Amino acid sequence: MRILILGGDGYLGWPTSMRFARLGHEVHAVDNYLRRHAHAEAGTDSLTPIAASLPERASAFRGVTGLEIGVSEGDLLDWDVVERIFRDFRPEAIVHYGEMPSAPYSMIDREHAVFTQTNNVINTLNVLYAMAEFAPDAHLVKLGTMGEYGTPDIDIEEGFIEIHHKGRSDILPFPKLPGSMYHLTKVHDSNNIHFACRIWGLRSTDLNQGVVYGIETEDTTLDERLNTRFDYDEVFGTALNRFCLQAVIGHPLTVYGTGGQTRGYLNIVDTIRCVELAILNPPEAGEYRVFNQFTEQFSVLDLARLVQSAGKQVGIDVRVDHLDNPRVEKEEHYYRATHTKLLDLGLEPHLLSETLIESMFATIERYKARVIFDHILPVTRWRGIREGSAR
Amino acid sequence: MRILILGGDGYLGWPTSMRFARLGHEVHAVDNYLRRHAHAEAGTDSLTPIAASLPERASAFRGVTGLEIGVSEGDLLDWDVVERIFRDFRPEAIVHYGEMPSAPYSMIDREHAVFTQTNNVINTLNVLYAMAEFAPDAHLVKLGTMGEYGTPDIDIEEGFIEIHHKGRSDILPFPKLPGSMYHLTKVHDSNNIHFACRIWGLRSTDLNQGVVYGIETEDTTLDERLNTRFDYDEVFGTALNRFCLQAVIGHPLTVYGTGGQTRGYLNIVDTIRCVELAILNPPEAGEYRVFNQFTEQFSVLDLARLVQSAGKQVGIDVRVDHLDNPRVEKEEHYYRATHTKLLDLGLEPHLLSETLIESMFATIERYKARVIFDHILPVTRWRGIREGSAR
Repeated sequence: MRILILGGDGYLGWPTSMRFARLGHEVHAVDNYLRRHAHAEAGTDSLTPIAASLPERASAFRGVTGLEIGVSEGDLLDWDVVERIFRDFRPEAIVHYGEMPSAPYSMIDREHAVFTQTNNVINTLNVLYAMAEFAPDAHLVKLGTMGEYGTPDIDIEEGFIEIHHKGRSDILPFPKLPGSMYHLTKVHDSNNIHFACRIWGLRSTDLNQGVVYGIETEDTTLDERLNTRFDYDEVFGTALNRFCLQAVIGHPLTVYGTGGQTRGYLNIVDTIRCVELAILNPPEAGEYRVFNQFTEQFSVLDLARLVQSAGKQVGIDVRVDHLDNPRVEKEEHYYRATHTKLLDLGLEPHLLSETLIESMFATIERYKARVIFDHILPVTRWRGIREGSAR
Repeated sequence: MRILILGGDGYLGWPTSMRFARLGHEVHAVDNYLRRHAHAEAGTDSLTPIAASLPERASAFRGVTGLEIGVSEGDLLDWDVVERIFRDFRPEAIVHYGEMPSAPYSMIDREHAVFTQTNNVINTLNVLYAMAEFAPDAHLVKLGTMGEYGTPDIDIEEGFIEIHHKGRSDILPFPKLPGSMYHLTKVHDSNNIHFACRIWGLRSTDLNQGVVYGIETEDTTLDERLNTRFDYDEVFGTALNRFCLQAVIGHPLTVYGTGGQTRGYLNIVDTIRCVELAILNPPEAGEYRVFNQFTEQFSVLDLARLVQSAGKQVGIDVRVDHLDNPRVEKEEHYYRATHTKLLDLGLEPHLLSETLIESMFATIERYKARVIFDHILPVTRWRGIREGSAR
């Protein structure tokens, strides 16, 4: 199958590109290095060294495996780029990771919010128009986030909910309560994609993904040049990955507030398998479906304790700090999200274990000389656009 | 009160500006003539002549009434413009009409969709950041649309719905099924504004407005230079206004499909009163509330028959044509939308009557030499981004 990977240089996009090439698909990866530029701007970097450009990574992959990954360096905001890629490659499936993925980044200030909303919403619109024109039967696999739902006081369903109201009923989009300017873009995208399916008969799977952890897949470990990135800074780092790094370098784990915030989590290996399962089982023309893509729920404090306990096993004394929460979010709340659709398609979860955490410790240990200490503590605050003026 | 009217040159913005000036408020109107430019681009025009610029209209209003309306010509996408206006005027209330308001315009092609989404979403983001920085206690009265809800098979509530699910319940945003790229922008705006209220403690009323009809308010009739615009073309015209014009010029009424599409409608005089009621009764800090702003429900065919019957009274023989529907929408559907909140605040509706339609006929008669016949029939189709390629 011809599979287009948008954001193919990223944490998930690069391992996904390698995985699909290995499975025998014709893969084309696109990226504009947005994530790399944002790190350069902030003075941060991936723990794992990513020195090679995307073409160089593809070339290293070919050297090691003999398998091809086509690449384009370009910005999906630029219609000429999108049009050319769709016209030339004629994808049968599109995996869309190509967005600015950071909540704190989007909350830095107005410019970052406007950039994030423009970048994510408009590049996805370009993809939808390119599909309608050049690949109307293709399947769009779009990465969304469980963060679109927020923390409602009822069980979260997979994208839609049957509502009974005043003696009637309908199955309608599940209400959303996104928690940052970035999370809002994913909701906007979901609405735009749903519309394109309803009106133009496109087909799409929206993967509302939990927080991904892990550093390695069977491809990244083949050769150091095939590494995927690993972020731990306050802007791009995510809970478990950051905690593992903090444990290794002797930094207290930075729990925001009480740590009662509960979310869905999954292993990077399962993320890639979920995308594969979606592609192997495409929706009908005109169908827009949503899968909640995570394997387990944890509170932030659960994770901190797991890392603390794994640390004990390997002789690291891990301290847990409760920081003043920079975000505006509920710290104690009901949380129960359905996630059976991917299991029904055959997902066999790699659950979180102390063994996995210890193996992450080992990988982090290898690169710990590269750690930049300045950007681990949270700086971006949800309130206070300008100190003292906004509330 | 210092009231900022965004989109103050438009069909509703201009009469709202005059009305609030008459009520003794300090009014500042902003516009970038987006609507005028879009008409110039398409070769269409308002039936009522709008020759004067916004400063000239304000000057004519001062000449006739002695009342002041401050004006700025500028684009809300430009942060420098927004920042300057908010810093200098320090509004206590903001009425935001300043968006591209046409569903067909947004569906012309990719460029028009991208422009509409960028313009509406980003200019509203700019307004939210300006409020947080310069006017955190101000009240944002944002014009939304009943079209955000689409046509669900349950009763539509005012912005939020109590959902009972698996033994629990919560009050959550009412699910949305917007029907065009334009309607999607209003949903995106609603989500962004709700977030700004939740996170920064701003206050806002989102007025999900029905289709507005009518040509005149007590201010527009004072002097021809104080006219508001009246659009009847396929891009900017709306159902009842267009039907009245078609009746007067002897054009068959253009009903799309069966005409069973049912929506909420209201008189332009009631629109302005609703905005006033919202401003007089502001929400709490941090509160985001939604009012469904319409007074009566009609199907398109109901309206066509009303116009036909009013025509009979004044000796016009009105023909009704059923055109192949250019839109993708249900033509026969359940529709029942709650709209009690504005009535509870004191709205006394001006209901649609044959008398009102006959008075619209008379005003249209006065200007009928100005009618441009070329752009009455629908051209923009929801399906078919490119003939034969998209579905």
